[in-house]
Amino acid sequence: CTQPYTVFAAQKAPTTLDTSSFMAAPVTDLKTLEENPTDMKTKMELMIMRIQSEFCRALEAEEGDGGKFTVDKWVRHNASEGGGVTCVLQDGATFEKAGVNITVMAAPLSKELQASMRARGKSLPEDKKFTFFAAGVSSVIHPRNPHIPTIHFNYRYFEMQDEDGNNKHWWFGGGTDLTPYYLVEEDVRLFHGVLKSACDRHHPTHYTRFKKWCDDYFFVKFRGERRGVGGIFFDDLEDEDPEKVFGFVKDCAEAVIPSFLPLVQKHKDDAVSEAERRWQLLRRGRYVEFNLVYDRGTKFGFATPNARIESILMSLPLHARWEYMHQPAPGTPEHKITEVLKNPKDWL
Amino acid sequence: CTQPYTVFAAQKAPTTLDTSSFMAAPVTDLKTLEENPTDMKTKMELMIMRIQSEFCRALEAEEGDGGKFTVDKWVRHNASEGGGVTCVLQDGATFEKAGVNITVMAAPLSKELQASMRARGKSLPEDKKFTFFAAGVSSVIHPRNPHIPTIHFNYRYFEMQDEDGNNKHWWFGGGTDLTPYYLVEEDVRLFHGVLKSACDRHHPTHYTRFKKWCDDYFFVKFRGERRGVGGIFFDDLEDEDPEKVFGFVKDCAEAVIPSFLPLVQKHKDDAVSEAERRWQLLRRGRYVEFNLVYDRGTKFGFATPNARIESILMSLPLHARWEYMHQPAPGTPEHKITEVLKNPKDWL
Repeated sequence: CTQPYTVFAAQKAPTTLDTSSFMAAPVTDLKTLEENPTDMKTKMELMIMRIQSEFCRALEAEEGDGGKFTVDKWVRHNASEGGGVTCVLQDGATFEKAGVNITVMAAPLSKELQASMRARGKSLPEDKKFTFFAAGVSSVIHPRNPHIPTIHFNYRYFEMQDEDGNNKHWWFGGGTDLTPYYLVEEDVRLFHGVLKSACDRHHPTHYTRFKKWCDDYFFVKFRGERRGVGGIFFDDLEDEDPEKVFGFVKDCAEAVIPSFLPLVQKHKDDAVSEAERRWQLLRRGRYVEFNLVYDRGTKFGFATPNARIESILMSLPLHARWEYMHQPAPGTPEHKITEVLKNPKDWL
Repeated sequence: CTQPYTVFAAQKAPTTLDTSSFMAAPVTDLKTLEENPTDMKTKMELMIMRIQSEFCRALEAEEGDGGKFTVDKWVRHNASEGGGVTCVLQDGATFEKAGVNITVMAAPLSKELQASMRARGKSLPEDKKFTFFAAGVSSVIHPRNPHIPTIHFNYRYFEMQDEDGNNKHWWFGGGTDLTPYYLVEEDVRLFHGVLKSACDRHHPTHYTRFKKWCDDYFFVKFRGERRGVGGIFFDDLEDEDPEKVFGFVKDCAEAVIPSFLPLVQKHKDDAVSEAERRWQLLRRGRYVEFNLVYDRGTKFGFATPNARIESILMSLPLHARWEYMHQPAPGTPEHKITEVLKNPKDWL
């Protein structure tokens, strides 16, 4: 007799991927991921799905019953170009707004983007059409207590090749940076120390180089101040061996929890005065200024047709405040942090 | 005998200008203004000083004892290039944040600005150096009660000429626009009606043309919605007779109070629910998005070295809010206003 069950089982690729701990199913279908386990696209997608889930669970653990992440799995306007998973925890007990987003997309490279890639030094022949693949995790966490800093991180992988599968380019970018409202030097040292350890395991100059890059990038020119106390930032990272760079990026992404959670645990029950809350809201206004005026990812999103704007702007705080001519008095803790934003220092 | 008093009096120009009602002394010294009473630069500066003062006094009258404007007279980094008078009323009983700024500046035209002027159609010979003069009043009023709209207006005069005093160009620009949180059609009609009357006194198509220009300009592309219910907006306005254009701009500026104060008086004591306040804060977030991402005046300010950033950003609200994926339910008043922002309509 015929055995339809067996026939079906024989056609099915062996299921080796366990995605049960992820916030949602990966963007790419499981079969493609399972059939290409050594492809960097697969490795990156699975890594960022895991990082998203581990980070969201770690934050939820700090909330207790105070809040849970909502999970939105979305596809692009043209579904064949990919999509993402956006997790947001809003108005929680510990976190006022926490967003952790992953995006995986594959699309034709527009003329404009092709020109901008060329301007960045990628050699792309004029007569070829290119497709690009991008996979990244991006997160901004705005805690409720002003004694806990805001953290941002983003790790991403790009790949592009022409229609014949030639002229392939790939690179990684990313970073993690901290925006405290009050300066607690030992907290900043802990944060930078964890990032430095991750860097040092891969290259002796990574930390110094990427720390400076971070200070330079997160700069609000019209204010003459940095967004926060920095961290690491890099782009266009490549190597003869892609696995090497992937290993570094994975280490950086895995350093987020140990660099940040201790600060949450240390300060989440700190007493907060009205003046401290007000200062936090003023600084969140500055965060909005950086993100809307300077942030490259945000501007790229604004310029992308049919971008999912809610996933891009999940980085904005629940509340922000702008006071005309606010100047903290010299000698106050509020003044102390602004000095460091104007003159970045070495923490280690 | 010698009479030093008489000698001194004879040297002094006759004082004909009464600036006592202004918020501060004009930016240009009185002698220059008095000696050039028919110069458009003088006429514009005195007009915007008067408009600033009349508007600030009218707003203060609505505050009662609730708030007063602070007045900051400032000069540019290079004081010979001019300066301004910034008036801000913050955290008042009726107005949460009200800013009324005048700027008067005269400076060499940078290469970049010269190129951008050329791109806008001004014929500026390449081999000449130009100086430009700009005088304008700019204001954003964020009332406390969500049933009173936010209003913005800006009226400005530009002049430029080459080093020999030739190749002179001049033009006026400006507009007034309204951003309600809740749609009260008769309020919007009153507002547009006052603007239309001012326009109709000068040209039969001004209102229609400048109403459309306003709808097109105050557009947040990535949201697919306008900032508010429009008003009028124009730029590069010129005529054989400068006095004609000045008369129109003056009429528009004088229309601000009658277009807005009735709405303040009507709604300032309206009952406000927590949900209405929250909606107001969310919409103020959208206001921030337009101003930081799209507004040409703000972007021009960010790009100007040593710009007085506090005068530029006085337009930002005291509070703003961003919620992930906030969508008002169909049929609610909150939904009703968003429909009008997506599809601007004719109010008259």
